[in-house]
Amino acid sequence: MEKLEMLYEGKAKRIYRTSEPGVFWVQYKDDATAFNGEKRAQIMGKGELNNRITSIFFRMLKEKGIDNHFIEELSATEQLVKQVTIIPLEVVVRNIAAGSLAKRLGMEEGTALPQPVVEFYYKDDALGDPLVNDSHIDVLGIATAEERALLREMALTVNEVLVPYMKERRVTLVDFKLEFGRTEEGQVLLADEISPDTCRFWDADTMEKLDKDRFRRDLGNVEDAYKEILKRIGGETHV
Amino acid sequence: MEKLEMLYEGKAKRIYRTSEPGVFWVQYKDDATAFNGEKRAQIMGKGELNNRITSIFFRMLKEKGIDNHFIEELSATEQLVKQVTIIPLEVVVRNIAAGSLAKRLGMEEGTALPQPVVEFYYKDDALGDPLVNDSHIDVLGIATAEERALLREMALTVNEVLVPYMKERRVTLVDFKLEFGRTEEGQVLLADEISPDTCRFWDADTMEKLDKDRFRRDLGNVEDAYKEILKRIGGETHV
Repeated sequence: MEKLEMLYEGKAKRIYRTSEPGVFWVQYKDDATAFNGEKRAQIMGKGELNNRITSIFFRMLKEKGIDNHFIEELSATEQLVKQVTIIPLEVVVRNIAAGSLAKRLGMEEGTALPQPVVEFYYKDDALGDPLVNDSHIDVLGIATAEERALLREMALTVNEVLVPYMKERRVTLVDFKLEFGRTEEGQVLLADEISPDTCRFWDADTMEKLDKDRFRRDLGNVEDAYKEILKRIGGETHV
Repeated sequence: MEKLEMLYEGKAKRIYRTSEPGVFWVQYKDDATAFNGEKRAQIMGKGELNNRITSIFFRMLKEKGIDNHFIEELSATEQLVKQVTIIPLEVVVRNIAAGSLAKRLGMEEGTALPQPVVEFYYKDDALGDPLVNDSHIDVLGIATAEERALLREMALTVNEVLVPYMKERRVTLVDFKLEFGRTEEGQVLLADEISPDTCRFWDADTMEKLDKDRFRRDLGNVEDAYKEILKRIGGETHV
């Protein structure tokens, strides 16, 4: 299989077409951005760490029956995935109040939620990825009511798998963001990545943040935190 | 019936207990606020205009079978209403993109929506009345799924009545905000007010704004716009 032209460059990844129909080549970058791109940096080794972490999570989720785009890890920073058209919604699941939810509802960060909260954000950098409700999504025409129900169900299933998986590894899954895509045949698959860039992970014993909040909030040791997550889920790295 | 102690003073109204159980006395004020209280002014005659306009709308909606708290108009600025406990949600219905929806979805103000948009905002001044989704409302515990469905249905029914009613009077109903309350018996009633403070009304021929946006956006002639709405719906005022 050959890697062909680049189709898309995002904040954290580049996506290439390949010589095989229906297969994309993903390359993870070391670039870190936050606050809708206002804060930028390079974090050495982040591309490798997120590629490894995402590969472990997506393989595990596939074994648990959650359809996703992952095919195989190619190298330290590269993976093959099935071609999907991303649905422009960030699907966020929250178990503990943090970040924008704590602000929105006036809850103290760290408050356990009585049940998981699911939120949809419209993926649009120019608009700052705004929170949207079902009625907005209808008007935008980006997902049907049936698709929204499926996205919610899949996101909550990922949560039901990830929470105990991480808890066994002494990590609390505070919240996370998923993206989904449609294949040419119309199947909805979990896509994008699951990593410390897209999850809030707190050490279950010390409450230490092991995720992108270390970058967002200038807490230092960003790379070490990502390495710790990889270590906890059994991966190795040469970083 | 006697007017007893004041129970609540909001931005635009004072609510008093009365000697009759289950009946509140409402007094409309001339105070105008916008942007979560950051902009303030007094608009001469606004209290009277909004009391008259709300009375006309609520009487008409009751005739159309929409349960609401209105009992009777007492004076230029006062009305009697049934006692309800307000559900802390602002229920917004939109027919045309304007204000925060235009910003949120990146639509040009004035764009007709393919179907009405319904939004819930959490009534909390300290939080700036944030947009909330069903999942947030579950966590806040302020309305059940059944109540949310009822609020949506009642809000859309109000829209179906108000749009043609205003159109006959050459006014376009762009969007509006409703509040609902529960009686002691648990019945959900439309409450609060319906006025140029809570609706966007555009002259159907000239597109001139006949609502609180004249105050928010410093367009002048606020009082005249409110008077025009009262005139179009057949009311009189001594203002």
